[in-house]
Amino acid sequence: MGAALEHLLTSGGKRIRPALVLLTGQMLGAPREKLVTLAAAVELLHTATLVHDDLIDGALLRRGMPTLNARWSPAATVLTGDFMFARAAKLAAETESQPLMKLFAITLATIVNGELTQLFAARGVINRENYSQRIYSKTASLFEMSTRAAAMVSPTGDEITEAMRQYGYLLGMAFQIMDDILDFTGDQETVGKPLGSDLLQGLVTLPTLYYIEAHGDDEDIRLLADGGYGDRARVARLVESIRSSEAIDRSLEEAKGYVKKALDLLEGMSPSQEKQALEDLASYIVTRKI
Amino acid sequence: MGAALEHLLTSGGKRIRPALVLLTGQMLGAPREKLVTLAAAVELLHTATLVHDDLIDGALLRRGMPTLNARWSPAATVLTGDFMFARAAKLAAETESQPLMKLFAITLATIVNGELTQLFAARGVINRENYSQRIYSKTASLFEMSTRAAAMVSPTGDEITEAMRQYGYLLGMAFQIMDDILDFTGDQETVGKPLGSDLLQGLVTLPTLYYIEAHGDDEDIRLLADGGYGDRARVARLVESIRSSEAIDRSLEEAKGYVKKALDLLEGMSPSQEKQALEDLASYIVTRKI
Repeated sequence: MGAALEHLLTSGGKRIRPALVLLTGQMLGAPREKLVTLAAAVELLHTATLVHDDLIDGALLRRGMPTLNARWSPAATVLTGDFMFARAAKLAAETESQPLMKLFAITLATIVNGELTQLFAARGVINRENYSQRIYSKTASLFEMSTRAAAMVSPTGDEITEAMRQYGYLLGMAFQIMDDILDFTGDQETVGKPLGSDLLQGLVTLPTLYYIEAHGDDEDIRLLADGGYGDRARVARLVESIRSSEAIDRSLEEAKGYVKKALDLLEGMSPSQEKQALEDLASYIVTRKI
Repeated sequence: MGAALEHLLTSGGKRIRPALVLLTGQMLGAPREKLVTLAAAVELLHTATLVHDDLIDGALLRRGMPTLNARWSPAATVLTGDFMFARAAKLAAETESQPLMKLFAITLATIVNGELTQLFAARGVINRENYSQRIYSKTASLFEMSTRAAAMVSPTGDEITEAMRQYGYLLGMAFQIMDDILDFTGDQETVGKPLGSDLLQGLVTLPTLYYIEAHGDDEDIRLLADGGYGDRARVARLVESIRSSEAIDRSLEEAKGYVKKALDLLEGMSPSQEKQALEDLASYIVTRKI
């Protein structure tokens, strides 16, 4: 058990969510101790969902390292995830903030509900609205919670709290779109998982949606619509077609659009190191290669 | 997903934990609405842990009905459990009680930690202390939380809250010992799972511990100590030996001892219908056949 947790805690990750908590809270003058507790709760919640996620997907690699799922039994994986949920809930409770506890529970419900919807939904072609809902549940909801919760424990008003909630939401949407782009364009070794893995699982993301708009007659797309994503050779060809099409740039533009709005929201804040770091973080999200 | 939840919610169970919340809270004058929320949170938390438990054990029957695990994929089972955790946490947050939220998180951690310990611990012979810790994590912790939480949202003092916490703890210990007895003595169809299922899984419970004390030279016991519980015929013989030995009565006496202490704690309370029901519930726990 200690070994299972150690494996998780040393296998890296970008720790963007706790960074959002700390920077937002420090910018707004929140007590340091509460922020650290909150940041830990957010990262634990995130890691717990990843652990169960990898079990569900049967993923063997995460961040280029073997997943718990690859090394341990499903039983150990389920329970390690549960244990992290419990620890996260305990940390959230230690912030002593009632609305924050509710937000925490609602966010967990949003994430899990999104996964259930994805699990039971038919694979293949989806529309833009499905996609937006999915990436909100999967990623933006926790980004949104991170900045919102940090603002909630800060000595600030509703307007700033709402602005920081939106900032987190926008960053989360951009982050997931970027993840979905990197699944096509990334360097396999750096990203740490096979390229085109989404499509191989029948998961349609933004680059594919843009590609479909422009190349609806591509026979490989029709294959996808028929649920034929099991044909690995044809899916690999489709991944290559999308990768070299304008769909990548369009998706990138969309991610940048979210970041632009997020930066606009920061404009009103007084200058500080943390504000600068939040701006840099927003820009990093759409330039990252991993 | 709706179907998965419906399956769970209609497959029965004794609903003892919500009954404990409602009776304790009503006896002590807690607001009805808070109690109903709390009772729902407790039962959801309990059901969520059962869902993951059945996945971990690979159990195909629970309460005589097919488990989610038997009907759905592991992915759906993990996520349904997670979804119930999230809903339970949300309900707990809605009680608007900070200490209660912490208690909720700590109890979840206790339960999961107990399961992890059991999973990673060597099978076979354990001592009394291991056994007590295990049944505390598995069952008594949530019973204890149910009565304690109900007292915490009631207009009452620390002394009564502590008495009701102990009452819940004692009932939970008795309940699990009784469960472990019924695994040997129960009517297979009524209990809804195979007899001797604990020993078949290499799980030593109180009746086996008492049997070992008196019959340490039984060759089937030595088999167990060697991890030989995979030999079903010999385990079946051992189950029969334990079932017809004095170990059953001794275990029952121990369960009754817990109930006796629980009843003593109720003595100081003013008479009420709820107090009477809590007394009846305590007595029921050690006379039940299912």
